[in-house]
Amino acid sequence: MRLPLGLSRMCRFLAYSGEPVFMSSLVSAPAHSLVHQSLHATEAKTGTNGDGFGLGWYSERAEPGLYREIRPAWSDENLRSLCDQVRSRVFFAHVRASTGTASTRANCHPFAHRRFLFMHNGQIGGYARIKRRIEAMIPDDLYDARLGTTDSEAIFLVALGQGLDTDPVGAMARTLRTVRALMVEAEVTEPLRFTAALTDGEDLYAFRWACDGCPPSLYVRKAAGGLTIVSEPIDGQREGWREVPKGCTVVARAGRSLAIECLNEAMARAA
Amino acid sequence: MRLPLGLSRMCRFLAYSGEPVFMSSLVSAPAHSLVHQSLHATEAKTGTNGDGFGLGWYSERAEPGLYREIRPAWSDENLRSLCDQVRSRVFFAHVRASTGTASTRANCHPFAHRRFLFMHNGQIGGYARIKRRIEAMIPDDLYDARLGTTDSEAIFLVALGQGLDTDPVGAMARTLRTVRALMVEAEVTEPLRFTAALTDGEDLYAFRWACDGCPPSLYVRKAAGGLTIVSEPIDGQREGWREVPKGCTVVARAGRSLAIECLNEAMARAA
Amino acid sequence: MRLPLGLSRMCRFLAYSGEPVFMSSLVSAPAHSLVHQSLHATEAKTGTNGDGFGLGWYSERAEPGLYREIRPAWSDENLRSLCDQVRSRVFFAHVRASTGTASTRANCHPFAHRRFLFMHNGQIGGYARIKRRIEAMIPDDLYDARLGTTDSEAIFLVALGQGLDTDPVGAMARTLRTVRALMVEAEVTEPLRFTAALTDGEDLYAFRWACDGCPPSLYVRKAAGGLTIVSEPIDGQREGWREVPKGCTVVARAGRSLAIECLNEAMARAA
Amino acid sequence: MRLPLGLSRMCRFLAYSGEPVFMSSLVSAPAHSLVHQSLHATEAKTGTNGDGFGLGWYSERAEPGLYREIRPAWSDENLRSLCDQVRSRVFFAHVRASTGTASTRANCHPFAHRRFLFMHNGQIGGYARIKRRIEAMIPDDLYDARLGTTDSEAIFLVALGQGLDTDPVGAMARTLRTVRALMVEAEVTEPLRFTAALTDGEDLYAFRWACDGCPPSLYVRKAAGGLTIVSEPIDGQREGWREVPKGCTVVARAGRSLAIECLNEAMARAA
Repeated sequence: MRLPLGLSRMCRFLAYSGEPVFMSSLVSAPAHSLVHQSLHATEAKTGTNGDGFGLGWYSERAEPGLYREIRPAWSDENLRSLCDQVRSRVFFAHVRASTGTASTRANCHPFAHRRFLFMHNGQIGGYARIKRRIEAMIPDDLYDARLGTTDSEAIFLVALGQGLDTDPVGAMARTLRTVRALMVEAEVTEPLRFTAALTDGEDLYAFRWACDGCPPSLYVRKAAGGLTIVSEPIDGQREGWREVPKGCTVVARAGRSLAIECLNEAMARAA
Repeated sequence: MRLPLGLSRMCRFLAYSGEPVFMSSLVSAPAHSLVHQSLHATEAKTGTNGDGFGLGWYSERAEPGLYREIRPAWSDENLRSLCDQVRSRVFFAHVRASTGTASTRANCHPFAHRRFLFMHNGQIGGYARIKRRIEAMIPDDLYDARLGTTDSEAIFLVALGQGLDTDPVGAMARTLRTVRALMVEAEVTEPLRFTAALTDGEDLYAFRWACDGCPPSLYVRKAAGGLTIVSEPIDGQREGWREVPKGCTVVARAGRSLAIECLNEAMARAA
Repeated sequence: MRLPLGLSRMCRFLAYSGEPVFMSSLVSAPAHSLVHQSLHATEAKTGTNGDGFGLGWYSERAEPGLYREIRPAWSDENLRSLCDQVRSRVFFAHVRASTGTASTRANCHPFAHRRFLFMHNGQIGGYARIKRRIEAMIPDDLYDARLGTTDSEAIFLVALGQGLDTDPVGAMARTLRTVRALMVEAEVTEPLRFTAALTDGEDLYAFRWACDGCPPSLYVRKAAGGLTIVSEPIDGQREGWREVPKGCTVVARAGRSLAIECLNEAMARAA
Repeated sequence: MRLPLGLSRMCRFLAYSGEPVFMSSLVSAPAHSLVHQSLHATEAKTGTNGDGFGLGWYSERAEPGLYREIRPAWSDENLRSLCDQVRSRVFFAHVRASTGTASTRANCHPFAHRRFLFMHNGQIGGYARIKRRIEAMIPDDLYDARLGTTDSEAIFLVALGQGLDTDPVGAMARTLRTVRALMVEAEVTEPLRFTAALTDGEDLYAFRWACDGCPPSLYVRKAAGGLTIVSEPIDGQREGWREVPKGCTVVARAGRSLAIECLNEAMARAA
């Protein structure tokens, strides 16, 4: 039941930062909410996203809460109740369409480490061939923090080692550059595609990049109360949503205006 | 996340009787196997069947084995291994698209009682309004055998009380007649649709009936080694599959030729 | 793997009402917290409580949040995170040791209906024999609210029909009286034992009663910030804990002093 | 909820080789069966084994079937049905008491690779400190076969690279020697304790060794029909069970007499 090569399965995600809102308002309630999307995909290439769900949220503590489950989101009463009850000022939600790795909670996004949350939609082509070398780049003091077996978690830990806490965009650029170099060295022909989001509970970053110019989609919406970043618009209409250009990073620092920066330049600087 | 009224979600099932075969040959291996169908629906009205899977099989004992799980079939390594390893002469497999009842193992088809297996695809319109009266029809000695909360399990237990072991077609006809009468009495406008399979490990029965003439589809294929009955053809082509006419029962008694009988007549006799 | 008759398996529970606290402070953190107890029972008659966990809590909404899971509490990262992150002024936690009913989320305590939470530790002797008659007492408009198959959920729905919202103690007394009468009528020799807690998010009630004078234990602790009611003391010492006498009800109405009332009298009045 | 250092949690296992028997006869039926033990530990140091269950069995194929689940064995109807229905000539069963690693199916024993099954009871002291170096010893072509994150699976893959298929005892001796050397080098003071079983579906090996002379217990029983090897006797009496001496390997080659060999010598030869 492994997927045939070349069949790309897409995940979906949502990130919010702003006035505290019940998570249900974005995650489970809208007609085209993330949970609804996970059941009835309309635009995506895959029919369903039933390989796990994850929710990370910040409330009173510096570290985020984390809820990850492998049963489908649409029938998970615990998830529904959590979203209905909990208000949060910054939260991430992710529905997974596995590219082959086992369905375990530890393999579900978002991944949390200390005060950080990270989630990813995309693929690291030829991962099986460069897995060892990517894992070798995880610093010793973070190696035990690897709880699952996904490529996405490995990338996150590598990026933490590259300085995510002081220079998030630079650290991610360095990480992508290095991973891409490993792929080239291993003569991998499949692409590296990386649409991802990162936060420390205060600042929010979202990345859209691919070595072949085909990164998964990414949209941003700035409203009175807050900022929402999604892989696909969640209310069934395009209004209010702005597509993030390929090769760009959304930078939403607390108390600053939203900025769209060029990730390609950051990667060039990372050389 | 309850489904809107009127949106009908279809399950899928497969029944086999014949030479012992590895269950994987029909359940998980073919390109359009039941497990594959559960992930990528092609013809069905619903995008996915991720609300539970069940497998019932006969080997050396009179009672069937039963494997039911609420995680999606396509990522269930246990299911895959079981199907790869176990040969069976009679088995049922079912993927569920819930119509609202909780996703629990006890709500997954097939249902087993003593030597019987039963599974269902369809709907009992207005079930919430007639639930009590249907459950009241379950005989006292079977009431404790109710492990879940679905309409399908209730129908099965009612039918057992109507004499499934001595007159399967008559018992099912009487049950459908009575359920339909309860619906009419309660002025339910939604239909009763019933495509189902039943076996005692020797004889195999499949039913296709609906009060509005729109029962879910049912196909049968007779090959050298055995008989396969499915809700949708499993190999991506129509060849070899024969559609079971509406209002009919497939009767495959051990050592007898396959017969297609008229269920409407049986229901008339049940009056 | 059904338990032999006569072997009583005990659940454990905790109820809190007072200043909002992180649920972890009572549920998962203390050395003898409920979660710790579920793994290493010290005083109880059963070795473990691994048949499900439940948490119900009130925050900003009138209806409680609900988290129920069948994997053991001690290895559930989602539960740990939820308890670490969420503050609540009123919450219930329960670890289940099944007496035979299936391990499903819908069978885990607490049970929620509208703004009520209910949880139970004990047994209804000979339940299989009186199940139908107890379920027949559930009012029509609550019958569809039955999501699982436990005796405890049935009792809760019956009590709701007896007026839990206007007269909680009287409704529970009437329910117990009626259930006990059904048991006597059915010549059940096993006892009815009922240690339970009920809340509407404002007032908190706890009951300790058994027809044979052997109800499961119940303790209450009144501290500056709030009231805690438990099946067993949670910090490894008896200090501060007061045992609730058999046949009594703890009544903790919002803004009133704590009262211990006689449940036997209430039951006599219910006649 | 991490366990305090020094608190050793024991798993339990059973291996069978002989005339094909229903797995239930050893796994779930006896009063002191593995499943019963998982609920009520009598002699072990830990109160319960609720962190996962695994079953590996051989039938008609060269590769074993595998069933692993994280819900407690005692309430798992799927497991019970599988054991009731399937006969096997060689099978392994294991109940897990986690030492801290996540409860996922992929972390449950036994581990399977091609035609091999492996399961382990014990501990690799200071594993977090030597994890990278142990994982570095897994050969490139087996690195992608790592599905979970346990020390036991890593040891198995390292041993496969050391020649498990041609020289099982030698390969295991070399692996233990190397792991122990890494521990000494890292100045780990906690012990390496290794009670384990290995099979290729034909020959069966069981190991009992510890660097501090305190390996978990291991018993063997040779009866007319077959050989059973267990961590603790499964029928509540010592009769018929022979304790495997510390530092020894049980060697049960197909068609040969049972032999108990000295593992210490094998380890010396491995130098």
